[in-house]
Amino acid sequence: MAAQIDKGRVLLALTGYHPQRWYELIAARRDVTLEPDGEADPSITYAVVWKQRPNLLSSLPNLRAIFSIGAGVDHIFRDPGVPNVPIVRVVAENLTQYMTEYVVWRVLDHHRQGALYRNQQARKVWYEPPQRPASDIAVGIMGLGNLGRAAAKALMALGFHVNGWSRRGEPMEGVTVFGGERDLIPFLNATDILVVLLPLTPATHGILDYGLLKELRRRNGLGGAVLINAGRGQLQKDDDILRALDDGTLKEASLDVFETEPLPETSALWGHPKVFITPHAAATSDPAHLVGPMLDQMDALERGEPLRNTVDRQQQY
Amino acid sequence: MAAQIDKGRVLLALTGYHPQRWYELIAARRDVTLEPDGEADPSITYAVVWKQRPNLLSSLPNLRAIFSIGAGVDHIFRDPGVPNVPIVRVVAENLTQYMTEYVVWRVLDHHRQGALYRNQQARKVWYEPPQRPASDIAVGIMGLGNLGRAAAKALMALGFHVNGWSRRGEPMEGVTVFGGERDLIPFLNATDILVVLLPLTPATHGILDYGLLKELRRRNGLGGAVLINAGRGQLQKDDDILRALDDGTLKEASLDVFETEPLPETSALWGHPKVFITPHAAATSDPAHLVGPMLDQMDALERGEPLRNTVDRQQQY
Repeated sequence: MAAQIDKGRVLLALTGYHPQRWYELIAARRDVTLEPDGEADPSITYAVVWKQRPNLLSSLPNLRAIFSIGAGVDHIFRDPGVPNVPIVRVVAENLTQYMTEYVVWRVLDHHRQGALYRNQQARKVWYEPPQRPASDIAVGIMGLGNLGRAAAKALMALGFHVNGWSRRGEPMEGVTVFGGERDLIPFLNATDILVVLLPLTPATHGILDYGLLKELRRRNGLGGAVLINAGRGQLQKDDDILRALDDGTLKEASLDVFETEPLPETSALWGHPKVFITPHAAATSDPAHLVGPMLDQMDALERGEPLRNTVDRQQQY
Repeated sequence: MAAQIDKGRVLLALTGYHPQRWYELIAARRDVTLEPDGEADPSITYAVVWKQRPNLLSSLPNLRAIFSIGAGVDHIFRDPGVPNVPIVRVVAENLTQYMTEYVVWRVLDHHRQGALYRNQQARKVWYEPPQRPASDIAVGIMGLGNLGRAAAKALMALGFHVNGWSRRGEPMEGVTVFGGERDLIPFLNATDILVVLLPLTPATHGILDYGLLKELRRRNGLGGAVLINAGRGQLQKDDDILRALDDGTLKEASLDVFETEPLPETSALWGHPKVFITPHAAATSDPAHLVGPMLDQMDALERGEPLRNTVDRQQQY
């Protein structure tokens, strides 16, 4: 067992999040600062970050670990000078639950023809279109980490057939799993509703392009394929999605993420009748649920225990 | 064991459903007719019905059983001359699955603020409102039959707290069950989102009035209570729902059923911004899934076996 080490100081560096609640909750248990004291602040041993400014972290000689406040860590690797210390992702029941809610909500709204009914209501039309049961629909989940597996489980409980795709293709009970690049097209060919929960890495950047969407199953009974992206905006090409919607390759899309966020006012996605937009809100990072486990990890490290949920620097997730 | 009896002939009498697929599927296994041959047709032993015309069934001297093609049987009792033979409800996995999909879909769309996001999208607004996790929300289900129990299970799997109310209050694992009239107000006081799956009987007619809606929990964090009615239209008072929506007693409603169906063009519900309307389409009676089990029941009866899923004539469900 490693020797016990000193209680470290925390740097909180968030872009796009208001830091107050995070700050208060960390301060209740540890010394915390929003800015390092100088060029090379030796007092800081942990960084809790979201899109930290480049080279901020490389100035901290005693940094022991970096904590992302979200499930993704791509924003950390954008900094070319990110020091070679362990990077910890958030894995929290709260975050997983939010994402499962979002995925099931969006899958059901497309499956149960929400847009059609809202359109009919606006015109006072009383008409019941044909409706398939969930068991006739295959939802394909790209990315089978904690979030993907929880969503798969919830969708299977509702009767959907679930396909899964991941780089390694680890099996999951009840799910038809496809693994690696070679299996991507068979996975898409067997999928009616595509749910994307991939991490953003050099290997997945821009993966959701027109060619990929073209491979989705389009059966007459469903009126076309559906895309739901709750992963990262830079997995997708916004223009390719618009093209696919306009030529019928896609029937509808629910997008929580975009190449540029906030989504620019000029984007044609805003007003597209086949698109449902949420502002990167599928799974909120709620400090009330996330700060405790982060501080527990720091305590554990100082007791000589290993960190959990660390990122593979090679794979960047 | 009762003696084996002759293979009976089927009368198919549907109002508001196209009979063709039902007819074909029944005809594949039994003699079937759309109209009885005369005033007192002795050849007909089973009736498969939806809103049959009054006194049609009383003219059949050899009727052994009446089958509803839907989960409800109230439409059968509207006929004052309905003969005193067993009445069989549909209990089918397919119907239960559709209803579960509908309930989870509508609960999630209200919980995840679908209307707000659609409104923001129309105005190109990028804003993430506060969002509670499912575990902070209590969904109350009125009616704990097959449909109510299946919906409760699916909602609990997503993390919602589930209350249940039924006349008898039979317990269900994980659900806070309230039973009988005396417990109705405590049930409503503990419920944020009310899901109605009650049968229509003399005891439940018009139960969803302003006074009942007023008892729902309205917490600031949720912005008001929600009503989802997928039971029967005559459980509710359309005007009381409108009043509750307009004075803030209700935040939103999803209605699949109405006092008069089809919903008249003059109804203020059509254009109400807080109402989501489907045309009695929550759980479609699909002949491909329902005819087989009905014919199996007729076969079983003729082998001397008892009918399943019969209705209590006193309770009318």
